[in-house]
Amino acid sequence: MGLITVGTVAFDDIKTPFGHAEKVIGGACTYTSWSASYFTNDIRLVSIVGGDFPKEELNKLNERGVSTEGLEIVEDKKSFFWAGEYHDNMNQRTTLATELNVLADFDPVLPASYKDAQYVMLGNLTPEVQMKTINQLSTDPKLIVLDTMNFWMDVAWEPLLEVVKKVDVITINDEEARQLSGKYSLVDAAAAIHEMGPKYVVIKKGEHGALLFSEGRIFSAPALPLSQVKDPTGAGDTFAGGFIGYLAKTDDISFENMKRAIIYGSVMASFCVEEFSLDRLKTLTQDEINARVEIFKDLSMFDL
Amino acid sequence: MGLITVGTVAFDDIKTPFGHAEKVIGGACTYTSWSASYFTNDIRLVSIVGGDFPKEELNKLNERGVSTEGLEIVEDKKSFFWAGEYHDNMNQRTTLATELNVLADFDPVLPASYKDAQYVMLGNLTPEVQMKTINQLSTDPKLIVLDTMNFWMDVAWEPLLEVVKKVDVITINDEEARQLSGKYSLVDAAAAIHEMGPKYVVIKKGEHGALLFSEGRIFSAPALPLSQVKDPTGAGDTFAGGFIGYLAKTDDISFENMKRAIIYGSVMASFCVEEFSLDRLKTLTQDEINARVEIFKDLSMFDL
Repeated sequence: MGLITVGTVAFDDIKTPFGHAEKVIGGACTYTSWSASYFTNDIRLVSIVGGDFPKEELNKLNERGVSTEGLEIVEDKKSFFWAGEYHDNMNQRTTLATELNVLADFDPVLPASYKDAQYVMLGNLTPEVQMKTINQLSTDPKLIVLDTMNFWMDVAWEPLLEVVKKVDVITINDEEARQLSGKYSLVDAAAAIHEMGPKYVVIKKGEHGALLFSEGRIFSAPALPLSQVKDPTGAGDTFAGGFIGYLAKTDDISFENMKRAIIYGSVMASFCVEEFSLDRLKTLTQDEINARVEIFKDLSMFDL
Repeated sequence: MGLITVGTVAFDDIKTPFGHAEKVIGGACTYTSWSASYFTNDIRLVSIVGGDFPKEELNKLNERGVSTEGLEIVEDKKSFFWAGEYHDNMNQRTTLATELNVLADFDPVLPASYKDAQYVMLGNLTPEVQMKTINQLSTDPKLIVLDTMNFWMDVAWEPLLEVVKKVDVITINDEEARQLSGKYSLVDAAAAIHEMGPKYVVIKKGEHGALLFSEGRIFSAPALPLSQVKDPTGAGDTFAGGFIGYLAKTDDISFENMKRAIIYGSVMASFCVEEFSLDRLKTLTQDEINARVEIFKDLSMFDL
């Protein structure tokens, strides 16, 4: 089942108490695609980079089953760049620089070979770019997942609502769910967002896990308590990649299977934060993933 | 298996966005005892009240199997009183008044009939009172659970450490675990606290659930997402009551049974916050408890 991943492919500069990663590979779509590649090898990436983006990184993605036919390369421009520093035990971060570069002109064009994808992951981007992606699909996909953030609620409310109307799943954090719905209780927020379009609402709570809401049903997934978090960058995108990658692999969008997908997403995110940038995601083995799934079972299972 | 509950029995004045409960029954020991009474009817309360405390409240406790032989009544003085107001959707509260009254002179005396209790819940109080309780036990109990808070870490560090050394389980929130251990990661904090004495560390995270740590094992219990929280007062004490009440009932302190106890504690806390004061705890039925346990199962179970 083909999976489209749309979002940024970029450079990051990341400072945490554990070190400083200078001009490393980043971007929501990069994290999502790497994460999903452990579940499916029919991934169709849509993004834009400058001539400065290393070709060997694209080759590595291709080797993982990620098509970069939908990646626009603007040779005479620079890739999107984000610099940030994490403080206070990783709970807060300061953006030190955001250089849009090629991203300012991003007008996604889906290759013909992409258009019948059944699974679509719309990474955090302007709602306009997200809508343009949806509008180019030739078939009605089985599942569209939207990631967004408070910034778009502040500056692009109406276009965001149009996209929200079109998607099946939205992944946001608890504060964003409250802002989008105007409701404080997450139960009420999920019900209100359901009315806006998405059948499923996934609320990402970082170290407190994730919640899945759908039509009155709720699933609460734990996060794995870790002794050391080196770099939280990309954890949410990695979660999304594991989530939709597992759904695309199993081609089952029932609530029960969504629960499993949430666990796989959480497992992938727990690896992501162990090292800087994509370092941990690039070295994973299926055995390591399976072993961590068992840890998640031990973490949350009880017998009554 | 006899269960001793030590702590405050008091009056509260509570303002929340849902109303104002004036001079209602409160106190950690009251919440804990009511909650535990749904699991065992051999509860031995240790506390102090003034002559103003309604006798019918004590009768109700007696009817639930809570002995008040260890409750000192100082007829010519007033009971402990706390007034508070909840803001910002219940996440923050302001203390408006704290009148120690009889609590200033609390010197717990365990009746002879109490001293062989196998389960002991030390509610949040000065470490000196907690230690005096431990020192009066005639037999080495099977399980001592300690609840404490950041205040005692600030003003009574050494006496607190002495108590911590003597107990089997400590229940605190995440910030308190960090303060007590000097470690930010909850995994590291739990390991450090384990070295201080308690074999089990229970970290209460309110709306984010609870974590149980013991010798490298971790269990993550969800909290039930609720549409409406009327009054969070006593939720932690109610959790503790369900936790130790279930353990006393089953008389099994294995890690697997502790997990179940955490779920029962969470179930009881989820009821507590639905109404002001002890209103919801006083009207519960076993069927309601069982039904909510099923909801907790649905909330956290997945099949892989």
